[in-house]
Amino acid sequence: MGTQIAKALINHNFKVITAGEGRSARTLDNIRNSGITDTQSLQNTVEQADVILSLTSPEGSLKMAETVISCLKTTSNRPLYVDLNSNTPALSLSMEQLFSAIDVPFVNGAVMGASKDVPDHAVLVVSGIYRSIFIKLFAPVFKIKDAGEKTEAASAYKLLFSMVNKGMNALFFETMTAAAHFGILDELNESLQEFLPGTYQDLMKTTPTYPQHILRRIDEMKGLADMLKSENLPHIIASGTAETFERVYRSGIFENENPEGVIETLQNFNKLSDKK
Amino acid sequence: MGTQIAKALINHNFKVITAGEGRSARTLDNIRNSGITDTQSLQNTVEQADVILSLTSPEGSLKMAETVISCLKTTSNRPLYVDLNSNTPALSLSMEQLFSAIDVPFVNGAVMGASKDVPDHAVLVVSGIYRSIFIKLFAPVFKIKDAGEKTEAASAYKLLFSMVNKGMNALFFETMTAAAHFGILDELNESLQEFLPGTYQDLMKTTPTYPQHILRRIDEMKGLADMLKSENLPHIIASGTAETFERVYRSGIFENENPEGVIETLQNFNKLSDKK
Repeated sequence: MGTQIAKALINHNFKVITAGEGRSARTLDNIRNSGITDTQSLQNTVEQADVILSLTSPEGSLKMAETVISCLKTTSNRPLYVDLNSNTPALSLSMEQLFSAIDVPFVNGAVMGASKDVPDHAVLVVSGIYRSIFIKLFAPVFKIKDAGEKTEAASAYKLLFSMVNKGMNALFFETMTAAAHFGILDELNESLQEFLPGTYQDLMKTTPTYPQHILRRIDEMKGLADMLKSENLPHIIASGTAETFERVYRSGIFENENPEGVIETLQNFNKLSDKK
Repeated sequence: MGTQIAKALINHNFKVITAGEGRSARTLDNIRNSGITDTQSLQNTVEQADVILSLTSPEGSLKMAETVISCLKTTSNRPLYVDLNSNTPALSLSMEQLFSAIDVPFVNGAVMGASKDVPDHAVLVVSGIYRSIFIKLFAPVFKIKDAGEKTEAASAYKLLFSMVNKGMNALFFETMTAAAHFGILDELNESLQEFLPGTYQDLMKTTPTYPQHILRRIDEMKGLADMLKSENLPHIIASGTAETFERVYRSGIFENENPEGVIETLQNFNKLSDKK
């Protein structure tokens, strides 16, 4: 994702810098080939940057923020810090506090879409009181969505988007479990496909990926349910989605499966009734 | 529904009879205008019929079966009895027992679609060991789906179909509740519509009907959850759907609303955050 975003910026004549120290030979090649300037150390990057974009894992984002903050303590440079990782709303608020304590403007963001979709189809969602600086600078480069001044909004946005995608699959998984029990899985699927053709079209992108990714999605949906709980929001469908994925994972019906389509993925639920 | 089915049968040269006694002047007009023969009493109908189609409310279906059975006790005629009401699987099994005790073949059925969709688009789902008699007789008239030999399957079919439609709405309702809280309802909807256009297309048929019909759907989804529980099937999403509709109903956000589209319906969730 970082490389794609850097390339898009370079295509729009932005200078992109990064710290090469401690990175693999392959990453260094990648950096050079993309037209990114290697400042060697993170300290140099932090001192020279007008804007810092953090693109790492959700788990790595707080560590990255803390490391940048310790670099900022020995310089008067005050760049805009933009976290583009898929954090929880709570984590985005903690990071904002850390940055505001040293007078660094913070923007919370999330990328909707895959690396390959940058810059034409992916959308960068941003929120927080400094988001307009980001929008003004980068509107010519990316598709940007303004999620408003609440810092945590961009994180909530990404999680809630994900909830719809994943909740739809959980709904189908529970329905197919019952359909298999009554011996009508194929017939029901045929009717659903006929009456809800658009929904099946959208499921094509996600459903066949479940055999491979269900464990990760259990974690994501637990994180979502925790976020809703901590905000005193209703979370029965979100919690039920996590629980449904856990049940399906434990059933083993997706083990060693590599389905090509929605129907083929859902047909694995027939194994549940075979077991009886 | 009964009239539409009678008309389709008459168009295919079937003789359709019914009992006019005790029915309103308007219904009697309707019967005559449709080409249905009035045998006066239910006893006459039961004695003359080769096939009896029961089309009443789910609540009325057992009473109808019992009344027909008491008529059958005084005749040697043994017509095929077809229940086409949206019953629970458990009720369909009870009815089958009653009919098998007097040697009357029973077919369980359900109609997928509205009256106006008969005969071209609605589908008659049938199940049970005598279903092939029904299918052979009426395949030229209706779209028929064979749900197999388990008697309860046609009822489960209809309920599980309904579960997908309703579960999708509950998923959106919980998501929109959270989106309104974070002040990003319109933005999130825009993205969802862009990334899941097919799903929104399918929601157009159902979502705008919730302000008017949510109370009835709470009951339907409770019935579905009970069915799943009684079969020892997972029911967390089904129960969550009923609970979500109850929460939305109690919130009052749909009161006096008559939305035209999906987005307009979902925008009512903004009222939840206004209340804070």
